[in-house]
Amino acid sequence: MEVINYIGIFAFAASGALKAMEKQLDLLGAIVLGFVTSLAGGIIADILLGIFPPVNLVYLPYPITAIISVFLIILIRKNLTKISKKLLYFDAIGLGAFTAFGAQLAYFHNLNILGVAIVASITATGGGAIRDILVSEIPLILRKDFYATPSIIGGFVFYIVSLRFLDYISLILTFLLVTSIRLIAIKKKWELPKINII
Amino acid sequence: MEVINYIGIFAFAASGALKAMEKQLDLLGAIVLGFVTSLAGGIIADILLGIFPPVNLVYLPYPITAIISVFLIILIRKNLTKISKKLLYFDAIGLGAFTAFGAQLAYFHNLNILGVAIVASITATGGGAIRDILVSEIPLILRKDFYATPSIIGGFVFYIVSLRFLDYISLILTFLLVTSIRLIAIKKKWELPKINII
Amino acid sequence: MEVINYIGIFAFAASGALKAMEKQLDLLGAIVLGFVTSLAGGIIADILLGIFPPVNLVYLPYPITAIISVFLIILIRKNLTKISKKLLYFDAIGLGAFTAFGAQLAYFHNLNILGVAIVASITATGGGAIRDILVSEIPLILRKDFYATPSIIGGFVFYIVSLRFLDYISLILTFLLVTSIRLIAIKKKWELPKINII
Repeated sequence: MEVINYIGIFAFAASGALKAMEKQLDLLGAIVLGFVTSLAGGIIADILLGIFPPVNLVYLPYPITAIISVFLIILIRKNLTKISKKLLYFDAIGLGAFTAFGAQLAYFHNLNILGVAIVASITATGGGAIRDILVSEIPLILRKDFYATPSIIGGFVFYIVSLRFLDYISLILTFLLVTSIRLIAIKKKWELPKINII
Repeated sequence: MEVINYIGIFAFAASGALKAMEKQLDLLGAIVLGFVTSLAGGIIADILLGIFPPVNLVYLPYPITAIISVFLIILIRKNLTKISKKLLYFDAIGLGAFTAFGAQLAYFHNLNILGVAIVASITATGGGAIRDILVSEIPLILRKDFYATPSIIGGFVFYIVSLRFLDYISLILTFLLVTSIRLIAIKKKWELPKINII
Repeated sequence: MEVINYIGIFAFAASGALKAMEKQLDLLGAIVLGFVTSLAGGIIADILLGIFPPVNLVYLPYPITAIISVFLIILIRKNLTKISKKLLYFDAIGLGAFTAFGAQLAYFHNLNILGVAIVASITATGGGAIRDILVSEIPLILRKDFYATPSIIGGFVFYIVSLRFLDYISLILTFLLVTSIRLIAIKKKWELPKINII
């Protein structure tokens, strides 16, 4: 599972770096966006649960992975079209992994089922939301895509499964479920209904 | 007072849902904006005061009220013009209630008078500010309206009254004062002076 | 050093007030932006380190200095062209002071070198970033200027110097270094490389 977490950090940091290039930010902007996209969700989750300092700040392998990922993406930026599809899959893996770990953390802090779902989805999608806010866009998760929804579902599932089974089983199950839903959503181009006024 | 708090959650969640419809977000976007508008101010106040996990996350009736309110607004969206004036009054009630409870919380945590005023106004207006940031607008409270001002005044008043009287009296007094100022401001179309350059 | 801290609060609050005038916000908007620009970075740093309530909220001289600075800038707004260059120098002093104090705080909380650099730069540049987000702009630090970079360098230097010397020496050294780099960057118009897509 730990390996899967690093894949998530890489994919999320990459999406931050790509956004920075799209907006023509400088090198520091790319590092900041990569860092924020991959680690801010977990930092907010830690804050909400009262964990100080947040793990993503003090456990060095995480921020270092994020920063290296940014440089890597910058280096291979000319061949991005080749890997852009792979990045989408990595991103789905990250979504599943971050949801599972976020849910586990919230569950261990005795949050109720709704709290677990909220913290899990913040862990997985909060970084991307802040990335978009930083470049003055409405967060993608609010606008389109079946993206945050698998994460919320995953939070509920983790809670329910954990009532009966060892948390390691919930962890793997949540990861597989969220990543699968996300991959199917990409394939089938699922969307939530827009709210039609009138 | 507790009933009044729920009226506030309803009105604030409604304003989040309305904003989501205005921006053509999907269902999840409406739920997120409703949740954030009604509960994020209190969550920030809890974080600033070191209360973990924040009450709005773990005391289920609050987030559930927010989510139900969003669905309610979506259901009655075709008759919104009829109730839009009532929503404005409910919003004023919410402003008063959230200010009073935020001030009480800060006062109990031994903040000074300025700290109480800041936490009270964050509790009451922080959610709306984040709602606007999420849809990439300059927060309404910064741009116009005599909106945050009653809340700040309410925080000062709570502190001063609490020095002499039971906190229950300050609570009701602050609520009545803030809501009244806000209602009068709506009626008279009060505005703070713009700062003229040159 | 304490005096230098107040110069920083003044300069940062001034930049918030100026942004409010540029965006034609009202008086409250100017106070909020001034407050946020000068104090929010330190508040976020305190939250990340688990210090509640944040010092900038409860140690009255800081918020009062920020608010007075905003009124001062509004009063002298007609002569701003005369002092705009001085403000830039004051801002560089603030950047150095906030970096040094932020680094010291993080170091005392046993953060590793990367954590110290991150918290130091958040302390110094986080307020300005939130100021820009509030007026719906991409934060300046992401877009241009050799602004956050001296602050990050300062965080690393503080950590390394503190391993050998008294923290008071690191504090002054970091302040002098960051402010000097920033002043030279202003003079020489340094910029970080943009990432060219092709």
